[in-house]
Amino acid sequence: MSTELEFKGYAMTNPSEWKELTLMSFKPKPFAPEDVEIAITHCGVCGSDLHTLSQGWGQSKLPLIVGHEIVGKVTRVGEKVAGIKVGDRVGVGAQDAEYPDGTIAQGGYSTGIRAHERFVFPIPDALESRHAASMLCAGVTVYSPLKVNGAGPGKKVGIMGIGGLGHYAILFAKAMGAEVYAFTRGSSKAEDIKKMGADHIIDTNEGSDTNPFVHALQDYFKPLAGKLDILISTVDTFQPGRPISNLISMLWIHGKFISVGLPDSDNPLPPIHPFDLMFNGCLIGGSHIGSKVEVMEMLQLAAEKGIKPWIQELPMNQAKVAFEGMRSHKVRYRYVLTQDIAPVA
Amino acid sequence: MSTELEFKGYAMTNPSEWKELTLMSFKPKPFAPEDVEIAITHCGVCGSDLHTLSQGWGQSKLPLIVGHEIVGKVTRVGEKVAGIKVGDRVGVGAQDAEYPDGTIAQGGYSTGIRAHERFVFPIPDALESRHAASMLCAGVTVYSPLKVNGAGPGKKVGIMGIGGLGHYAILFAKAMGAEVYAFTRGSSKAEDIKKMGADHIIDTNEGSDTNPFVHALQDYFKPLAGKLDILISTVDTFQPGRPISNLISMLWIHGKFISVGLPDSDNPLPPIHPFDLMFNGCLIGGSHIGSKVEVMEMLQLAAEKGIKPWIQELPMNQAKVAFEGMRSHKVRYRYVLTQDIAPVA
Repeated sequence: MSTELEFKGYAMTNPSEWKELTLMSFKPKPFAPEDVEIAITHCGVCGSDLHTLSQGWGQSKLPLIVGHEIVGKVTRVGEKVAGIKVGDRVGVGAQDAEYPDGTIAQGGYSTGIRAHERFVFPIPDALESRHAASMLCAGVTVYSPLKVNGAGPGKKVGIMGIGGLGHYAILFAKAMGAEVYAFTRGSSKAEDIKKMGADHIIDTNEGSDTNPFVHALQDYFKPLAGKLDILISTVDTFQPGRPISNLISMLWIHGKFISVGLPDSDNPLPPIHPFDLMFNGCLIGGSHIGSKVEVMEMLQLAAEKGIKPWIQELPMNQAKVAFEGMRSHKVRYRYVLTQDIAPVA
Repeated sequence: MSTELEFKGYAMTNPSEWKELTLMSFKPKPFAPEDVEIAITHCGVCGSDLHTLSQGWGQSKLPLIVGHEIVGKVTRVGEKVAGIKVGDRVGVGAQDAEYPDGTIAQGGYSTGIRAHERFVFPIPDALESRHAASMLCAGVTVYSPLKVNGAGPGKKVGIMGIGGLGHYAILFAKAMGAEVYAFTRGSSKAEDIKKMGADHIIDTNEGSDTNPFVHALQDYFKPLAGKLDILISTVDTFQPGRPISNLISMLWIHGKFISVGLPDSDNPLPPIHPFDLMFNGCLIGGSHIGSKVEVMEMLQLAAEKGIKPWIQELPMNQAKVAFEGMRSHKVRYRYVLTQDIAPVA
């Protein structure tokens, strides 16, 4: 019943060297009757970990342990917890926060976490922990808008930017029965995208290998005018010369453009004029990660259809390798860190 | 069968004096087998007439006759037209364009118009022409997003900016059974808004009469956080210090923010960051005017429920009075011009 237990994790202590994490001990939040305590086995590396560590979204309290795509084994449950028991395999997503008592919530690049049961999701047996981890943020971030906006048989779904989020969007949209248009810069990912199941691959940079100035003149969107029911954009840096109006011109009437990327605070969506929205009556939205119901549905779908994300595993102390692979766009398509401080039996 | 017929109308000939219209004759487009010819009795004055005349949306070919909220009597129907006959009372909305033969389409501040039958709507007997006119653009521009986004019993609908469009939005949202929150600057329209049927009136400028600097600090939206299912904004000039994030904070999960105002080309929506969209998973959209089906439904609803817009009538040669009333925000709530060149029997 002691709350004096210590956890250990890899913390950022100096923002100017944010990729260098240091092993440290920390005190978890006091254990509450609705809490579940988890010994962490896996934690996905999310783009938002990089934004947070590099202070792109604002200043953090230090030291800081990130990580919110957590899978592990339950080591303790509060007396008010129902439906989860010690030994269960569970996941925790992106709900970390500062607790009312002032304890700073630390993330999943660590040995353990205590979380309110409402943020704890049982993992179906058919799903491996390493595959489930990054579904808990990256996966549900695209699953939710696909589901809410009706992706399914007879629907045409565009996915712009095939990284961690985009590759999940292809896998889930196909599992839901939609026809998938994958938009990617250049041809380096084309073979992978085909294997993921996309029906069409559109190179948004075609021609730019030989002439970089063709770039802004790219007309890839024109043959697709009015074609898509849903367009999910995972782009997380918006560039001048690539106006939103080009993207939404590809939508059918009342089509949905959902931007799930979360750029740094100083990089808003390119300017939108109400004129851009009037021709097809389209709607522009973002992602609110996803509800518990959606997470459970997604995990079930993944278990039933055998959906396996494309991941690269690294021990937790190699997080820097993951950060650099993501910054240099070498990641294929999501890093998952495995426990190396206190392996779980 | 002659196409040499002449129409007359009030034209803008000099953009630097765009409020001064001149009576002129013009040649209508050649009459086609799908066309309906209409002797105009009424034409509403739309904000977009002012944007167009003042060249706020770009340069126009001159001379130019505006007006796209047209009601009149059918004087001729093409051989392929079904369901509309000479003598019928009909309306035409905002579908004017340059015709393939190069004839410039002129608008409704005139004696007559020829339009493809698909843009011609029969007016129900129970609806007066002067009431129907401005429904054909202003009315359907707000009716359509209310309908598409599910306004009805149990839904909370916010309406931001109570002018021509906003007053229609109150009337229709109430007729559909929704609970209506009207947002208006200051208190000058509060009595009117109550009579239109709004359930709640929110002064977005509260406090600014005594201290203009309170303005940007206004917190009117805070008590309404997460409350609205739909928020229709009719604002057509976006001001710094009034970020979109304030507005969409009032939406419930997956709520819709629909901006139906159409500002000048150099006045886009205030910057939107994907962060703004993530907390409630809201969607941002515009208006595509409305389909023929929606126009017919709206006219039927107005006829059944006895919806009467609040209008001020002026003879067509007084269009300038209307322009000035709109620019000075004195309009209550929509001007309708009546035929004074060639009265229709």
